[in-house]
Amino acid sequence: MAKLSLSGPVSCLPLLLLLAWCAPECHGGRILVAPVEGSHWVNMDILIRELHLRGHSITVIRTSKSWYVKEESSYYDAITVPVEEGFDAEFVKEILLKMMDIERGGGSMIKFMSLQILVLSAMRDAHEITCQVLSTMFEDRALMQGLDESQFDLVLTDPAFADGILLAHYLKVPLVYNVRWVISAEGHFFLAPSPLSYIPITGSGLSDKMTFSQRVKNMLFHFIMQFQTRFIIAPLYQAVCAKYFEEKVDVSELVQAADIWLMRVDFVFEFPRPTMPNVVYMGGFQCKPAKPLPQDLEDFVQSSGEHGVILMSLGTFVTDIPSDFAESIAAAFAALPQKVIWKHVGERPSTLGNNTLLVKWMPQNDLLGHPKIRAFVAHGGTNGVQEAMYHGVPVVGIPLFFDQYDNLFRLKERGGAKILSVASVNRVNVLQALQEVLYEPSYRENMQRLSRLHRDQPIKPLERALFWIEFVMRHRGAAHLRTESYKMPWYSYHSLDVTMFLLAVMTTFVAIFVLGVKCMCTRICCKHKLKQE
Amino acid sequence: MAKLSLSGPVSCLPLLLLLAWCAPECHGGRILVAPVEGSHWVNMDILIRELHLRGHSITVIRTSKSWYVKEESSYYDAITVPVEEGFDAEFVKEILLKMMDIERGGGSMIKFMSLQILVLSAMRDAHEITCQVLSTMFEDRALMQGLDESQFDLVLTDPAFADGILLAHYLKVPLVYNVRWVISAEGHFFLAPSPLSYIPITGSGLSDKMTFSQRVKNMLFHFIMQFQTRFIIAPLYQAVCAKYFEEKVDVSELVQAADIWLMRVDFVFEFPRPTMPNVVYMGGFQCKPAKPLPQDLEDFVQSSGEHGVILMSLGTFVTDIPSDFAESIAAAFAALPQKVIWKHVGERPSTLGNNTLLVKWMPQNDLLGHPKIRAFVAHGGTNGVQEAMYHGVPVVGIPLFFDQYDNLFRLKERGGAKILSVASVNRVNVLQALQEVLYEPSYRENMQRLSRLHRDQPIKPLERALFWIEFVMRHRGAAHLRTESYKMPWYSYHSLDVTMFLLAVMTTFVAIFVLGVKCMCTRICCKHKLKQE
Repeated sequence: MAKLSLSGPVSCLPLLLLLAWCAPECHGGRILVAPVEGSHWVNMDILIRELHLRGHSITVIRTSKSWYVKEESSYYDAITVPVEEGFDAEFVKEILLKMMDIERGGGSMIKFMSLQILVLSAMRDAHEITCQVLSTMFEDRALMQGLDESQFDLVLTDPAFADGILLAHYLKVPLVYNVRWVISAEGHFFLAPSPLSYIPITGSGLSDKMTFSQRVKNMLFHFIMQFQTRFIIAPLYQAVCAKYFEEKVDVSELVQAADIWLMRVDFVFEFPRPTMPNVVYMGGFQCKPAKPLPQDLEDFVQSSGEHGVILMSLGTFVTDIPSDFAESIAAAFAALPQKVIWKHVGERPSTLGNNTLLVKWMPQNDLLGHPKIRAFVAHGGTNGVQEAMYHGVPVVGIPLFFDQYDNLFRLKERGGAKILSVASVNRVNVLQALQEVLYEPSYRENMQRLSRLHRDQPIKPLERALFWIEFVMRHRGAAHLRTESYKMPWYSYHSLDVTMFLLAVMTTFVAIFVLGVKCMCTRICCKHKLKQE
Repeated sequence: MAKLSLSGPVSCLPLLLLLAWCAPECHGGRILVAPVEGSHWVNMDILIRELHLRGHSITVIRTSKSWYVKEESSYYDAITVPVEEGFDAEFVKEILLKMMDIERGGGSMIKFMSLQILVLSAMRDAHEITCQVLSTMFEDRALMQGLDESQFDLVLTDPAFADGILLAHYLKVPLVYNVRWVISAEGHFFLAPSPLSYIPITGSGLSDKMTFSQRVKNMLFHFIMQFQTRFIIAPLYQAVCAKYFEEKVDVSELVQAADIWLMRVDFVFEFPRPTMPNVVYMGGFQCKPAKPLPQDLEDFVQSSGEHGVILMSLGTFVTDIPSDFAESIAAAFAALPQKVIWKHVGERPSTLGNNTLLVKWMPQNDLLGHPKIRAFVAHGGTNGVQEAMYHGVPVVGIPLFFDQYDNLFRLKERGGAKILSVASVNRVNVLQALQEVLYEPSYRENMQRLSRLHRDQPIKPLERALFWIEFVMRHRGAAHLRTESYKMPWYSYHSLDVTMFLLAVMTTFVAIFVLGVKCMCTRICCKHKLKQE
């Protein structure tokens, strides 16, 4: 397939026109993908590969600073938008290290405020970069004309950033989300009624059963989230809309107008909550049965004997961890009879035991599905947590940032995980946590139960996701599954106008009745007096 | 399979014990079914037959007055509860004729009130009868002990009446609903957040896009529905609970505690609205491709030539219709070039044309799927409407009572149906409506579009329903899909306590601040005065 690797914006027009011209000969549909970097791309990539296998042609938008989304690919064409400042590996690494530093510091209120400010400022920067990318695209008329003439059947995007949403609106193309986050808030909060009495705001660390004070905390978190979304993030995109769209649009309406929301959770993982007909749950779509391990890894795993193996990974984003942090963990591992496979790219800790194998990369899914694996030490990213659930492996969680605590908390609530805060990581605590998860059978039993529930579905999550993507292409949208209630003013949506009107009517009736009775009483009294006189 | 046809309550114990004893040898699970009569049974019967084919053993509860649910069956065992007064054919027929009389009368407000009172009174009677059946069962210790020892894996019930719900609670068995109505209200209203601003109350005849006055009407309907459910119907069951359950239970909590709700709608039919993770949509599960017609019917259909055939049926409940009503319809049919097949059990109308064939029963699904069928004259029962959608046949609707107007209204809103009120039925109106639906292509095109959308599902609705019934048996419930928010007090659920608390805190802060400022001002003023003095 011809590559569409464009280093400068002007160069893309002839290729896009060619793409448009050859439309009738292409198998399947034409999909424009606006992905998000890092672990989000790992997810999106799985969908893209499958869509390519099904005969659809894929065009991916990336920037010249993209580090996960490569320019060269055998299964998609890339449109590379040139940027000076990028949402790149260095940008992310710097923020994550700062966050970890704060996490390890003491003083919970100060820590909380510092983290909030840092996260918010980083989020704002990242969304600003996205808006710059959008502006560059909209300014490039040849590119936009080319995209328009390509007659895409679908825009597939991760709405953690809103570039795909604005592009779909501009191109008038149906929109499907591969979603967990929507510009800084958890996806459901944008779409479905979410009573704060039993739906915890992500980041609050709360469950669906809350005490009064927890519900107060949850509402305060809701206010913070609303403030961030409405007054800090959304206005950035609103400015882009105002500049480049002819008609007046509201960004939050655009967000809610997507045809299908492919949610990267399911209700074995997530607490039960209201949902909408156009939400399709594909949690764990990336999980699959384990393949055989490479021979050297298999030999290492088998050498663990009856004790089995512990896996450890802190995810795709974290490359460096502070050395004392690594030393504590290594020392705890060294005190155990199990073998350990640790995905670690920093310096080799001096306390590392003979039982621990450091690797730069590991086939995580295949390892988690190996019968010798006894526990998984994880940071709590969605992908890892879902894989642990799929394979029924208990977890020792060390959440670092974002939603990681909440992800792990969902496993903990079901009795499948033990959580250690970054601040409390030392040899003794890590060792105790590992021993509890390894030798208390309930952890494994609970994860196995979750695994059975997760796997017992009428159709596999990946198949379900692909079905609905193709459904939207077949029917040019899925308007029948989508309410348009988001177009109502807030006071109408919440029936405040109707309530006020009915109250006014009732008050009037009561007032008339009271006045009537009063009048009658006065008249009767008067008559009575007259009679007496 | 041994028949469990019990004419007296005491006689059932040995048979139930035998059933319990042979458990390990039985294939599949043991399902206790508490059905509802009439067209509701037609639906339930399809599920029961399929479950039987999959190797499950089914026990159905019926009364000695049941007329659809037969005592003898090759695919279920029956427990017959002896009753003196029954929710029987006569009871229903009498009410329906009264309702039709009122519908045909003039004066919309009086008509509305009379209908409401009649329906409410009939509903109350029917629920009272159900409560009597429940009392008879609970009083019969041998029967209840037998049911308990049968160790059912599941209670499958239609919660339009709550007998199955109370039985499941008593027997501590997982509960699955085959549902559209829950003790007088549409099912979703019991379960999912339902903003009245865009979710029309069934019976209101409104869509999901309402003007201000329509939203006022919708809220008033909501109040009526709430009043009926809470103060008229629920207390009947609450009294049964108080008498026969040891612990204190709340009926509406029992209703909401069901594991899976198999909803007899889908979102091709229903307006999009919030839903919950344990709601499984199986709308149209009874529909299937048409089988060949019996030869005489096929000959009749073919004789219609290019004009095609019109079908007419007013459903399972209506056996008699007023003769002038029948005469008008027959006269309209006679004026058309199409052939007509009319399911009619009353007297033969004198105006009947040669083109019209009266039948006592017809293979409705096979006829609707025949390519010669041009239109369907229907009362708007859920089954018929779903079948028309499945086969893409446009509808002329004459709604008689209950949810029939709302069902037809959903087709009308999508451009697939024309509605005639019972009061407006005369030769001219019926003829005009038929001609419009027959010769205006948009009606057929829209129904064909709905048919394509409805059929385009990753798994057939019936398969989906059966999967989730068996899921509940495999995992002994589906607690992970069910919120327990219904256990919260209403003021907590709606966060009123939290809101009041936060307002109080804010007010206190503001008051302290204002007082502080006032104090400071006073002091400054005093000092100023002292200085001046």
